[in-house]
Amino acid sequence: MPLLVVGSVALDTVETPQGMREDVLGGSAVFFSYAASYFSPVQLLGAVGEDWPEEHTTLLQQQGIDTSGLEVIPGGKTFRWRGKYLPNMNDRETLEVHLNVLAQFRPQLSEQARRSKYVFLANGAPETQLAVMDQLTGPRLVVADTMDLWIREHHDELLELLRRIDGLVLNDAEARLLMDDENLVRAGQGVLKLGPRFVVIKKGEHGAMFFSAHETYVLPAFPTPQVVDPTGAGDSFAGGMLGYLAREDRLDPATLKKAMAYGIVVASFAVEDFSLDRLRSITRQDVEDRMARYREMLSF
Amino acid sequence: MPLLVVGSVALDTVETPQGMREDVLGGSAVFFSYAASYFSPVQLLGAVGEDWPEEHTTLLQQQGIDTSGLEVIPGGKTFRWRGKYLPNMNDRETLEVHLNVLAQFRPQLSEQARRSKYVFLANGAPETQLAVMDQLTGPRLVVADTMDLWIREHHDELLELLRRIDGLVLNDAEARLLMDDENLVRAGQGVLKLGPRFVVIKKGEHGAMFFSAHETYVLPAFPTPQVVDPTGAGDSFAGGMLGYLAREDRLDPATLKKAMAYGIVVASFAVEDFSLDRLRSITRQDVEDRMARYREMLSF
Repeated sequence: MPLLVVGSVALDTVETPQGMREDVLGGSAVFFSYAASYFSPVQLLGAVGEDWPEEHTTLLQQQGIDTSGLEVIPGGKTFRWRGKYLPNMNDRETLEVHLNVLAQFRPQLSEQARRSKYVFLANGAPETQLAVMDQLTGPRLVVADTMDLWIREHHDELLELLRRIDGLVLNDAEARLLMDDENLVRAGQGVLKLGPRFVVIKKGEHGAMFFSAHETYVLPAFPTPQVVDPTGAGDSFAGGMLGYLAREDRLDPATLKKAMAYGIVVASFAVEDFSLDRLRSITRQDVEDRMARYREMLSF
Repeated sequence: MPLLVVGSVALDTVETPQGMREDVLGGSAVFFSYAASYFSPVQLLGAVGEDWPEEHTTLLQQQGIDTSGLEVIPGGKTFRWRGKYLPNMNDRETLEVHLNVLAQFRPQLSEQARRSKYVFLANGAPETQLAVMDQLTGPRLVVADTMDLWIREHHDELLELLRRIDGLVLNDAEARLLMDDENLVRAGQGVLKLGPRFVVIKKGEHGAMFFSAHETYVLPAFPTPQVVDPTGAGDSFAGGMLGYLAREDRLDPATLKKAMAYGIVVASFAVEDFSLDRLRSITRQDVEDRMARYREMLSF
């Protein structure tokens, strides 16, 4: 089924204990769509500036990603993020953010995009996410990501979003902040009461937790000794998860759990190199092989 | 098979966001032996002072724990620990430590204890742990715990211990410290090179990782919304794990993994109340029921 992602497209400058890369391909919609592309056709909706290297678009297209919704803003500059990871690789410092074209980005969905059945609203202002929802005609599943800024400063809009979406994906610190509760099990169950049918709390190297009315569970991350750059891990996770759901076109509990496992496996590749470099080097079969190892790991 | 634990027996004063308890039953050997008792006969070796409430010994005996190795030191006082947990329940502050009788404790094993096939050397000075090993006659499995103090200040003795034991259990911060590596997968694999046949890294609310020459895996914690007091969780985990191994009397990879899962399940009960209160309220069947839910949680 058609899968749509609306989110950032970026040029990242990233420093980690393993090295540094300047102005490399990044952004939530980019990681999401590349991760989803192993499973399902995906359409990317975003904006870049005139400084955007055309080769990045070509790279996404070669993976089968529909980039017709990637708008080049005349006279604009692409969103840039600069960050540095601490030695533990879980904490990072944002050194620079230049919103550039993202500051004015008001997503306009094509007729085809409006009819998408599966939609991921990557991290963004909740009012922008709501504006995308208003354009959809009968989606089967809308999942959103969010962040501390919106939880703190756009609280009412976020609550409105939560009443309308099917699923929310957020990280552990954000879940604690949103519910003012240090216990993640209670926090996740609390977010459910705000509206979504399911909630996923991402815990970085510790995996992810799932909450629905009838289920609470946690799956660990796939342990990799080669963590080079965690940038995009969360969006790769969401891409793997929603890509699998869109392909199966089912939303029963068993399919949701398997989708989450695929998300975890794809994310475990994403962190093994900078930008999309590791994801570019793997095939669908590599994903299946690691999925088999992951499943074996959790059997006893 | 006979299981022996040598470690601390304590009176704990604990403050957590859920409340406070003064001078309650605690200590590594106590949590370990109670957790192990669901699976296997267990003998506790430790020392207390004249202030030790006899009812605590009775409680352990009622659970079938052999307390003949619990020595009451004339004129001595029991080891006391006082700590406070931060709201996240993972970090804690030690406010007071009174070693008391523990300062002079040199474990002397009875004839029966020497012949133990399964042995857990709870956290203690590595030279004391080595002195226990010297008294054993042909154990099948010796597993030790350790802590930052010994890693920093008794490094050579700890390295000697690592060359002699079969398994090491330590927490994430200790593994990072021991190997000077922030990546837990690499750290765990590094510890293996120091001698043990397997290494378990405990990650608190994030579960535990297992390392052997042929395997690296991670199992998540069982998610409980009711975390009241994490004291003793690590020793309860080790107790559940070694208790199951002693009962099965097998050390193949499948049994080790199942043992680790049992350890995780027992620890998830231990944190649900202060001291041994939650463990005292459950039966072996409760452990099996939660184990079934845990297994189901990890199936997809």
